[in-house]
Amino acid sequence: MSKPYSRLDINNAAVLLVDHQAGLLSLVRDFSPDQFKNNVLALADLAAYFKLPTILTTSFEDGPNGPLMPELKEKFPKAPFIPRPGQINAWDNEDFVKAVKATGRKQLIIAGVVTEVCVAFPTLSAIAEGFEVFVVTDASGTFNEVVRHSAWNRMSEAGAQLMTWFGVACELHRDWRRDVEGLGTLFSNHIPDYRNLITSYNTFKAAKATP
Amino acid sequence: MSKPYSRLDINNAAVLLVDHQAGLLSLVRDFSPDQFKNNVLALADLAAYFKLPTILTTSFEDGPNGPLMPELKEKFPKAPFIPRPGQINAWDNEDFVKAVKATGRKQLIIAGVVTEVCVAFPTLSAIAEGFEVFVVTDASGTFNEVVRHSAWNRMSEAGAQLMTWFGVACELHRDWRRDVEGLGTLFSNHIPDYRNLITSYNTFKAAKATP
Amino acid sequence: MSKPYSRLDINNAAVLLVDHQAGLLSLVRDFSPDQFKNNVLALADLAAYFKLPTILTTSFEDGPNGPLMPELKEKFPKAPFIPRPGQINAWDNEDFVKAVKATGRKQLIIAGVVTEVCVAFPTLSAIAEGFEVFVVTDASGTFNEVVRHSAWNRMSEAGAQLMTWFGVACELHRDWRRDVEGLGTLFSNHIPDYRNLITSYNTFKAAKATP
Amino acid sequence: MSKPYSRLDINNAAVLLVDHQAGLLSLVRDFSPDQFKNNVLALADLAAYFKLPTILTTSFEDGPNGPLMPELKEKFPKAPFIPRPGQINAWDNEDFVKAVKATGRKQLIIAGVVTEVCVAFPTLSAIAEGFEVFVVTDASGTFNEVVRHSAWNRMSEAGAQLMTWFGVACELHRDWRRDVEGLGTLFSNHIPDYRNLITSYNTFKAAKATP
Amino acid sequence: MSKPYSRLDINNAAVLLVDHQAGLLSLVRDFSPDQFKNNVLALADLAAYFKLPTILTTSFEDGPNGPLMPELKEKFPKAPFIPRPGQINAWDNEDFVKAVKATGRKQLIIAGVVTEVCVAFPTLSAIAEGFEVFVVTDASGTFNEVVRHSAWNRMSEAGAQLMTWFGVACELHRDWRRDVEGLGTLFSNHIPDYRNLITSYNTFKAAKATP
Amino acid sequence: MSKPYSRLDINNAAVLLVDHQAGLLSLVRDFSPDQFKNNVLALADLAAYFKLPTILTTSFEDGPNGPLMPELKEKFPKAPFIPRPGQINAWDNEDFVKAVKATGRKQLIIAGVVTEVCVAFPTLSAIAEGFEVFVVTDASGTFNEVVRHSAWNRMSEAGAQLMTWFGVACELHRDWRRDVEGLGTLFSNHIPDYRNLITSYNTFKAAKATP
Amino acid sequence: MSKPYSRLDINNAAVLLVDHQAGLLSLVRDFSPDQFKNNVLALADLAAYFKLPTILTTSFEDGPNGPLMPELKEKFPKAPFIPRPGQINAWDNEDFVKAVKATGRKQLIIAGVVTEVCVAFPTLSAIAEGFEVFVVTDASGTFNEVVRHSAWNRMSEAGAQLMTWFGVACELHRDWRRDVEGLGTLFSNHIPDYRNLITSYNTFKAAKATP
Amino acid sequence: MSKPYSRLDINNAAVLLVDHQAGLLSLVRDFSPDQFKNNVLALADLAAYFKLPTILTTSFEDGPNGPLMPELKEKFPKAPFIPRPGQINAWDNEDFVKAVKATGRKQLIIAGVVTEVCVAFPTLSAIAEGFEVFVVTDASGTFNEVVRHSAWNRMSEAGAQLMTWFGVACELHRDWRRDVEGLGTLFSNHIPDYRNLITSYNTFKAAKATP
Repeated sequence: MSKPYSRLDINNAAVLLVDHQAGLLSLVRDFSPDQFKNNVLALADLAAYFKLPTILTTSFEDGPNGPLMPELKEKFPKAPFIPRPGQINAWDNEDFVKAVKATGRKQLIIAGVVTEVCVAFPTLSAIAEGFEVFVVTDASGTFNEVVRHSAWNRMSEAGAQLMTWFGVACELHRDWRRDVEGLGTLFSNHIPDYRNLITSYNTFKAAKATP
Repeated sequence: MSKPYSRLDINNAAVLLVDHQAGLLSLVRDFSPDQFKNNVLALADLAAYFKLPTILTTSFEDGPNGPLMPELKEKFPKAPFIPRPGQINAWDNEDFVKAVKATGRKQLIIAGVVTEVCVAFPTLSAIAEGFEVFVVTDASGTFNEVVRHSAWNRMSEAGAQLMTWFGVACELHRDWRRDVEGLGTLFSNHIPDYRNLITSYNTFKAAKATP
Repeated sequence: MSKPYSRLDINNAAVLLVDHQAGLLSLVRDFSPDQFKNNVLALADLAAYFKLPTILTTSFEDGPNGPLMPELKEKFPKAPFIPRPGQINAWDNEDFVKAVKATGRKQLIIAGVVTEVCVAFPTLSAIAEGFEVFVVTDASGTFNEVVRHSAWNRMSEAGAQLMTWFGVACELHRDWRRDVEGLGTLFSNHIPDYRNLITSYNTFKAAKATP
Repeated sequence: MSKPYSRLDINNAAVLLVDHQAGLLSLVRDFSPDQFKNNVLALADLAAYFKLPTILTTSFEDGPNGPLMPELKEKFPKAPFIPRPGQINAWDNEDFVKAVKATGRKQLIIAGVVTEVCVAFPTLSAIAEGFEVFVVTDASGTFNEVVRHSAWNRMSEAGAQLMTWFGVACELHRDWRRDVEGLGTLFSNHIPDYRNLITSYNTFKAAKATP
Repeated sequence: MSKPYSRLDINNAAVLLVDHQAGLLSLVRDFSPDQFKNNVLALADLAAYFKLPTILTTSFEDGPNGPLMPELKEKFPKAPFIPRPGQINAWDNEDFVKAVKATGRKQLIIAGVVTEVCVAFPTLSAIAEGFEVFVVTDASGTFNEVVRHSAWNRMSEAGAQLMTWFGVACELHRDWRRDVEGLGTLFSNHIPDYRNLITSYNTFKAAKATP
Repeated sequence: MSKPYSRLDINNAAVLLVDHQAGLLSLVRDFSPDQFKNNVLALADLAAYFKLPTILTTSFEDGPNGPLMPELKEKFPKAPFIPRPGQINAWDNEDFVKAVKATGRKQLIIAGVVTEVCVAFPTLSAIAEGFEVFVVTDASGTFNEVVRHSAWNRMSEAGAQLMTWFGVACELHRDWRRDVEGLGTLFSNHIPDYRNLITSYNTFKAAKATP
Repeated sequence: MSKPYSRLDINNAAVLLVDHQAGLLSLVRDFSPDQFKNNVLALADLAAYFKLPTILTTSFEDGPNGPLMPELKEKFPKAPFIPRPGQINAWDNEDFVKAVKATGRKQLIIAGVVTEVCVAFPTLSAIAEGFEVFVVTDASGTFNEVVRHSAWNRMSEAGAQLMTWFGVACELHRDWRRDVEGLGTLFSNHIPDYRNLITSYNTFKAAKATP
Repeated sequence: MSKPYSRLDINNAAVLLVDHQAGLLSLVRDFSPDQFKNNVLALADLAAYFKLPTILTTSFEDGPNGPLMPELKEKFPKAPFIPRPGQINAWDNEDFVKAVKATGRKQLIIAGVVTEVCVAFPTLSAIAEGFEVFVVTDASGTFNEVVRHSAWNRMSEAGAQLMTWFGVACELHRDWRRDVEGLGTLFSNHIPDYRNLITSYNTFKAAKATP
């Protein structure tokens, strides 16, 4: 009756970043700008950190939608980058789907702007083709909370799993001992409260080392 | 286990606008008035833009519920307009159901006031008769958020898909190249942030044209 | 895949009011006091108006939980009233279940205080015995919104339908022509915005009558 | 001990619209976009309706701040328009101050983007030169509510009066009989709830006229 | 440096209820409808209970603004009732000011719809003529919280005292022993939490009385 | 033009706890119950810690208002306790004023339930008699935020200083070295985040001590 | 179609408290600190009261995550305590799973910090192994509401039941007569409103006893 | 009657950063962590950019309060840094006051953690000694909004001006032409919406440059 536990697997997951464009970002009002920027960059950082195949795409980037956030381009210089000439649903773009399939991965981690369109449409299409989809809700933004919750409902009912960047990182990493410093740095860079914990801890430890 | 992706199809969809009446609108308190008016008019504009068969209905419009929003009547002068003599669930009105079936469409895009009654009742009835229903949550208003979320839950559990006017427009349009200007105008008229993007973009482009 | 439309039927529905006691009401903090009192009395009024079999029950009313709201006792002087000696789940009380079964109704409209216990427990038990349950979310109160949404989730997943008093009234009434004045009075007494509409309408009509 | 009642006077008031530019508008997050756009246009409409001298100014409009909202330029084709070459406080721009003084008015109605800078700075400067300032709080936007309330506090403590466009319109108009239709139209265009009242009223009256 | 304590005096206070009209009430969105209706009626009840001279006024009640709330007319059948032919500020109406002055009272308790106009304007005018004004903030409603707080700021800076109906009642009553039952009834009718306390208390006491 | 800095002085301050009664506490809805209880007990603890003269008073405690919170009575077994026979403003009770004056203190730290009455009235009266009043806003509760802010405004305009229990404790203590452990314990008992800091710190230090 | 009613059974339930560590608690921002601390301690108290097998675990407690809340260690001195050397999902730790299975219980009541990781991961794993999982939503905390609701959705879709500590206590206790005093004390210690009811009740009863 | 416009002057202003320590930051709950961190670093960046004398201080940094945010130490390696041995009010520390006076500046820009203590106390003390104080409200954090607004009220009533980092930057800069690139970079680094505007603008301009 309930969905089985499909666990994110570092060898089976790919990341799709859809339409995080400078113009479209001004439409995002269900997060504060600082928070949303941080979440998107955190997701990018974790994709890079875990070396997940990552695909970038934009919609109409020569028009008012504007160019992709420069930080994303810099972070993934070799990633497939598919500026779509017009398709609203990225999955309607053959190059995009080809790029996704070329990764050989069956678990898709998707985030984008705006949630109910740029995220939901490829999510629904990918599920229909047998992929597992994990929506990163806090790196996906839209007009307001009514829109957000409508989109979450539609995606969840279709079988997508709703996660956040922190959950994705933890589920991929599985065991701190795999790389304490690496994961710690990722968290320290994107969770101010965690950084504070580390700062205090290191200070106390240093004090201890110098009696 | 999960709902399959049923995609809105411009040739298979119809729009039902239920009881957006001047009196009943004063009951809507889960949206600010500016926002709600804009959402309803955006849905009307997209219905007209995509030439979807559209059906208007009202409940008791000679009484305190008041007349239909004049903008809707003007926008759809030839649409079937069914003032119901008493039935609360529009689907209990034969003329209404006849008008729906006359469209030959199987995907129903429904919005109305108030959500848990004028939207939910025909939604549940239409699903029971084999229609697919797409509820436009942001063009449907009610007393408060407790009522809204109860109604969303009931409709979603019954199989309705929750969408918003923007998602509906994008899913119907599918590709910007189908008509860039038309969709752009729709968005510009109902999304102030999008209008700003276009204003800036056009200004920069114009400056470029005049060296 | 989705729940079928089970429509509330005036001949098949009963109302269970669980633990709306003077002491327990001070625990309700997910509604403003004015709003909650109005919702509970509206549900009581509609139960009386539609002559639905109604059952009252309380938990430990001689202790700190306090007596039932006096308005409920007055409204239903002949209704079965089951002060439970200790059972937390009303369905664990034989007299209560007997009273429910004696109505011969299969659709149970339930509200109470607090939502996750006094409403959820009998809801889950009744569903397990084959009843259909309609939870009146806005006449059921609890500590805060985290608790409310957890309880809604549990009940909805178990098959209960979430409704509000206004939706219940409309689904039972079905057609205004059944009794315009009766339903209008119910709404006028419990929806200030609706009362205002009626006040203005009557004034204009009266002015018209006296040229 | 308290501020005396300085009443807005149609013959002594001027309107200053500061930096409502397409780019800067994307910074405004203490209002929903629909609401803010409506408020700004309502203020513009009332300035035109009451024929108040109106002055437009922008900051760096060839850069990222973008051009003035086109609706404002169209509404006031002959108004002084001062694109500032760099001064952040409009009052530091001689042409702007000259234009203000040329109106001969001593009551300044100011709105702009963003509140704590483009509105607050000229407000404080104008008060320092002996003008009375009426800040239109709902046509002035900024980053968030912390910023808004800090700015309101600073301006209020300096002697500015906080008003909203509706209050400004009413205080200038003083008596409905001056022009019922004109004021009614202004309200109908910018207050959906008021438009609904008028729609219902007119319908009832028309029904009365045709017996 | 600070305002002296001017205490409301049952022999020196009058109540002004401004424009609580059926149509205008639909504009009030800074309170839930149940809460606002309760607050207005509570203020009316306390005015009657303390036998304070009370003055009613409306603006354009034959038009869309609609008639005065019937409950107010019934509560004060002999009170001066001044339907203003057009003046927006009630203080601009000679009959209204005459009625106020005829009371001989110097402390004016004012509430109305909408706050920044119908309440603020007469408040500022009355202060300018030497009256003390006590604004009943919770029986005065308006479009939203931005408007509310702008209006509060303007009135407070002008010297008005912001109070609520409960504070007014307590400051007038001064000592419970003056009439325990009367004040208790007022509170019980308008504060559900208080009614619950009384219900429980009376039940316990009754149980005590019958050993 | 502005209020001078009057600093709380351990030798000149007294604490007045007004009407924190079991029944009245159910009226407090501008704080969550956990938070409010914690704030009141924190204020009591600091009063005891700093050995400030403390005065307790209740209103009608044999009736529905109920008895004083038992924790307060236990904390201050020897404090003057004035159950008022009827006066709503504690300052109208001679014994209360006598008890206040008997302390010889001129700085009064006041908290109570409900804010606009039980706190505001004695605050205004005490200021009128030349006392300095420091209102502990987070240990004073009332019906909702509209009431709270009206009451804050009235008290602030009258010259009261708005503080919170933490600010009061810090201003009285002045220097951690006065008693690190004492203040630390107070904070640890009432600020969970602070307790966590201390827990972690002590653990790290202990680890350091045992190499 | 819907989940059957699986009722918590005092002989079949165990409690898992995951990572309530002093450092990690500073990450919890979807509850106020007072409220969250109270909820966690309430859950601990009920586990002890009902003598449910309870298992404690921590993640990296020598590092910045910090030590377990001392109150939990004191409350369960003999409970299995598994400090995990690195596994993020507690279920990946063999000792933890062994401890769970050693209880012989099939109903797991889980709470922890942070919700989407420390609670959700073992929840999903346990369900996959055939356990029934009851998540205590109000004793589980995380970064913000977006994260909370994403995590709730994922767990609920996987078959977990969302409950709160109060619901858990009531479902386990079933009948007040089992131990009135014990349950009353639990509630009195963790629900301030309930304590107030009891305080008033006892006072009235005591007054009755001494005529 | 009102405060005169005292304008921040680049040659007369100094910045005081009080107690932004890793431990204390976990107490800040009136901002989201991302937002608060950004605001504090923005203030630091502007202080450095305008070369304002800046003074750092901490309270008990060897204890649980933890060390200063490392970013601040790195940004101001040569600034006076006064770790206070115990004084809660930084102004009670002679070295701190000496450092302030040594700047020769009379306008103090203050921010810190927590607002009602670490910011309010030195603010009140500095005003008492004749300094002008500008509180940076969005770089000062505390427990919750009740505390924040109490602290704002106390400081404002004492004569402090409430500003935000953006307002401070603009008031100091005065004219964009002073250094377009410098100010633009500051804004781009700390206002994501502004960065987006610049990204789009530069892209369009670059496109223009390459015909």
